[in-house]
Amino acid sequence: MKMLLVNGEEKLYIDANDRGLAYGDGLFETIEINLSRPVYWEQHINRLNHGCDILGIACPDEPLLLQECLQLALGINKGIVKIIITRGSAGRGYRPAHDSKISRILSLHEWPDIPENYYLKGIRLYACETPVSINTKLAGIKTLCRLDQVLAQSEWNENDYAEGLMLDANKLVIEGTKTNIFIVRGGQLKTPLLNHAGIKGIMRDIVIAAADYLDMPVIETEITCTDLEEADEIFVCNSIIKIWPVNAYRDQQYVIGDITRNIMFRIDQIQ
Amino acid sequence: MKMLLVNGEEKLYIDANDRGLAYGDGLFETIEINLSRPVYWEQHINRLNHGCDILGIACPDEPLLLQECLQLALGINKGIVKIIITRGSAGRGYRPAHDSKISRILSLHEWPDIPENYYLKGIRLYACETPVSINTKLAGIKTLCRLDQVLAQSEWNENDYAEGLMLDANKLVIEGTKTNIFIVRGGQLKTPLLNHAGIKGIMRDIVIAAADYLDMPVIETEITCTDLEEADEIFVCNSIIKIWPVNAYRDQQYVIGDITRNIMFRIDQIQ
Repeated sequence: MKMLLVNGEEKLYIDANDRGLAYGDGLFETIEINLSRPVYWEQHINRLNHGCDILGIACPDEPLLLQECLQLALGINKGIVKIIITRGSAGRGYRPAHDSKISRILSLHEWPDIPENYYLKGIRLYACETPVSINTKLAGIKTLCRLDQVLAQSEWNENDYAEGLMLDANKLVIEGTKTNIFIVRGGQLKTPLLNHAGIKGIMRDIVIAAADYLDMPVIETEITCTDLEEADEIFVCNSIIKIWPVNAYRDQQYVIGDITRNIMFRIDQIQ
Repeated sequence: MKMLLVNGEEKLYIDANDRGLAYGDGLFETIEINLSRPVYWEQHINRLNHGCDILGIACPDEPLLLQECLQLALGINKGIVKIIITRGSAGRGYRPAHDSKISRILSLHEWPDIPENYYLKGIRLYACETPVSINTKLAGIKTLCRLDQVLAQSEWNENDYAEGLMLDANKLVIEGTKTNIFIVRGGQLKTPLLNHAGIKGIMRDIVIAAADYLDMPVIETEITCTDLEEADEIFVCNSIIKIWPVNAYRDQQYVIGDITRNIMFRIDQIQ
């Protein structure tokens, strides 16, 4: 199962001069398909538009993207649609052309096989050595420049750890390789600020909103390795896996506490 | 004039699932062609191999790359061959597959039209706001993740400045958008260390070797904006343009001094 729409046409190929390949000059979204329909569509489109604003790319219209997403999702019970937007092929060297014809590449992927125990008993979190790049201009958005995550995931064997944690060059906690992280200490929820590194995930916003609803507002702040060591609960999240409690990181063991359970229950309810 | 070889075949397209597009998971080299032959070939191949080592990519054999480069360069008086190497299409999410089939994309491009005055009278250097990403693991190598440079070049009009200077988040001087930078102060040559950010250019190494030969060893060190202000001479370099003296940056004017002239003359001689 793998279908592709390149600028609306069923194709398996893209222009070898595309700036997405040449420079990582674009963005992407990975969207859950449930019963042929995209989940958290509005949130994904909002982030895509925000990223396009920062890169100076004219984002394709939402109705067009939705139509193509639904075309791929038709008859799919459970799956993933990935949307890639690039600045297209025009321009000389790094300098973008003013008249770039934006490329959009939508692809359908299989729903991953996630062990139930990741939700019931939590996951072990690997300590990645590969740092997250620091760049205040690109922080928060989901660009095609993802070598940090590729190298981080190649550090460990997939069967040993469900996810890996990444720090920046200043040893601040930033994110998982494909998730955002939240910690609980003394009843207080915290998550990294992500103003200089990292990706602001769809599920990160949804967890923050859910915590607000439950009267446990999340503090977005700098988080150190000591904060992790002293945490009562830790969980990671993204829009595909939702929430995985963390039961181990380095030498430390963690319980799946009440706050993690409450957030998980709330997220299940609102979906 | 634009010819392409994708894995040895004349094609205009690449697999839309290529990890070079998806994640910037690859490297590139931009190589001068002079009288049908690549210039500084060994240096480019060495950097490519070094980059492949860091990314854990099996670099295609040098004789194969040379054969394909010569195929594109045949009958070309002056031009550029770009080599892109990616990890190919295999793998699930960020995690690379162990059996990835590496992609190689070679393309022929026109030689740029460079005004003579850039060499004779120097260039104005724009002060970019876009920072260079800080990442100790990726520093030095020329990966496909080049959004920093794309955004930096889109900050100014090409006709107003020949190049732009980029700092990191700590306001240290790192590099030009497509060049490395050298400064002279009190007869002493210096260039940024590039151990946490930036690309180590072919010409940067060649300038360092030329300076050694001329008994003016280059100090690789941290360079601040104050160092730039107090510099006697500044020049930028890459393997296509060779060396451009800088005559203006922010409110400061600079002369094209003896050391810059000596290095330029030496580089001309050894090519």
